[in-house]
Amino acid sequence: MSTVDFSISEIYDLSYKTMISNGCDEPNASALSDIISRAERDGSHSHGLFRVPGYVKALRSGKVNGKAKPEITKKTSVVVHVNGNGCFAPLAQAVGLPELSQIALETGIAALSLTNIHHFAALWPETEFLADRGLVGIACTAYMPTVAPAGSSEKLFGTNPISFAWPRPGKNPVCFDMATSSMALGDLQIAARDGKKVPLGTGLDSKGEETTNPADIVAGVLLPFGGYKGSAIALMVELLAAGLTGEQFSFEAKLNDNADGGPPRGGEMILAFSPEKIAGPGWEDHVEGFMSKLEGLDGVRIPGERRHKNRLNKGLRSINSTLIKTIRELS
Amino acid sequence: MSTVDFSISEIYDLSYKTMISNGCDEPNASALSDIISRAERDGSHSHGLFRVPGYVKALRSGKVNGKAKPEITKKTSVVVHVNGNGCFAPLAQAVGLPELSQIALETGIAALSLTNIHHFAALWPETEFLADRGLVGIACTAYMPTVAPAGSSEKLFGTNPISFAWPRPGKNPVCFDMATSSMALGDLQIAARDGKKVPLGTGLDSKGEETTNPADIVAGVLLPFGGYKGSAIALMVELLAAGLTGEQFSFEAKLNDNADGGPPRGGEMILAFSPEKIAGPGWEDHVEGFMSKLEGLDGVRIPGERRHKNRLNKGLRSINSTLIKTIRELS
Repeated sequence: MSTVDFSISEIYDLSYKTMISNGCDEPNASALSDIISRAERDGSHSHGLFRVPGYVKALRSGKVNGKAKPEITKKTSVVVHVNGNGCFAPLAQAVGLPELSQIALETGIAALSLTNIHHFAALWPETEFLADRGLVGIACTAYMPTVAPAGSSEKLFGTNPISFAWPRPGKNPVCFDMATSSMALGDLQIAARDGKKVPLGTGLDSKGEETTNPADIVAGVLLPFGGYKGSAIALMVELLAAGLTGEQFSFEAKLNDNADGGPPRGGEMILAFSPEKIAGPGWEDHVEGFMSKLEGLDGVRIPGERRHKNRLNKGLRSINSTLIKTIRELS
Repeated sequence: MSTVDFSISEIYDLSYKTMISNGCDEPNASALSDIISRAERDGSHSHGLFRVPGYVKALRSGKVNGKAKPEITKKTSVVVHVNGNGCFAPLAQAVGLPELSQIALETGIAALSLTNIHHFAALWPETEFLADRGLVGIACTAYMPTVAPAGSSEKLFGTNPISFAWPRPGKNPVCFDMATSSMALGDLQIAARDGKKVPLGTGLDSKGEETTNPADIVAGVLLPFGGYKGSAIALMVELLAAGLTGEQFSFEAKLNDNADGGPPRGGEMILAFSPEKIAGPGWEDHVEGFMSKLEGLDGVRIPGERRHKNRLNKGLRSINSTLIKTIRELS
């Protein structure tokens, strides 16, 4: 695969220029470019520049409003709501997360629901925002129907990612961010693009048969991770992201989407908890005792550590040349 | 297997008499017998009378105080704490859940942390309590180290169950309650007792090798469900149940346990969310639209429906004769 070397700020600039050229105002373009450049910084390629053509499609079709001004309201003393007014998710998060964290630091627990947004990014930026402020974060969103509930071969669930971050003052948080499908759609698409095979059990082809060809699964259906237990987690995410926010379920998102290839309208649920308020003082040492046990086990990887290690590298990133060419042609 | 027929109230009475004979006062004995008889009613055999000998061991050793009086306090306006003072979990839940649900109905989100309790039961009684009041419930607890994190063959996580319930006014809630291990320890113990095999991948024997013999896994180590993704969920549960409550992690529970065979001291985290406050009016119809899609798929089972179907049967339950004999000898 031919690649081009880009610095993190060059990635940001390419993204920013592309968004501005396609109708975004400064707040929308910068919120989006920040998320894209941080994804590339951390090695989350499937949520970085790879997403830019899809973002542009959604702007050009008019599905997403690149000049949207999200509105924040408090539904109760501990429930914050941001109506994105049709923006991409990162701007709505930038508007809602500071308020969410301020409340949770005082009350111990708070919720942020996002509606009328278009989510096409990773979820760890939200949960790590909270962990950086000493809070536990949980975030989840639904997407287009791409996953068959356990026992079925019909798409109903989105890839329904869930992210969880636990704060470790002075250290990187424990942070996982994973699709509840056997594989993230972005990773499946990248595997298809690169002509790689995927493990049996990842999904079914359009005839409902098992296959190792990612392109056939893109045309067919993904399966949840971990059988019926993973399917239960996927159902929980769908109910929290759509039922609890009041936004579209995955199947509704598809029904109402214009099929431009960009992200459909959806919701996101973000929860924040303060260990200082709930467990009380001393929680850090208590948890570090456990973490040292976990870190001491052979063969165990702490969720998030690969991204956090990538983050330390301030140097250039190798980006797929074809992707760069495609993006440059969008301005 | 030889069985004896018992009515639900006879199951309650046998449990109650056994607990009173072993030092429980009325509130402790009735809270525990209620949970045990409801487990048998719903067909959750591994959390019913099967647990009684273990409960008695913990009372006889003095580890659990059968006359404990749980104390309820509010840590913040939306965080309730119950110190069980060494009781079995059901009494602490009975003290805390009404307050939790009242707050969540007003504020949209609230948390209940339980500490200094001994949890040996299912988690669906807690989450269904919330769902019966129109709330979404999430509950999780840790246990003794019985599960190796993905990549390792050393025990660190408990079986770390998580339960989730979604309210469906006029219908039974969607409710799952599952160990984040490949199998619940209770089910594994029952499989071992009944001489059954379990699927490969359930766990490792004491040499770290895969096996289908449940007794060898009881002596060895369970694995998480769903590989590294399930392991991440198990880690989240451990951090919420112990890190966020401030109670013992699974490994601490073992270090400080008297090995009497009863449940160790631990914590439980219970969360409640109001769809009425967060999503707003009309949420029921919105979610039922999704549920009708899910219920319409071939091969899909709605989480909880087997228990709810069992619950409709008001008749006699067939209980293992040896177990009944064992329990009767405890009074």
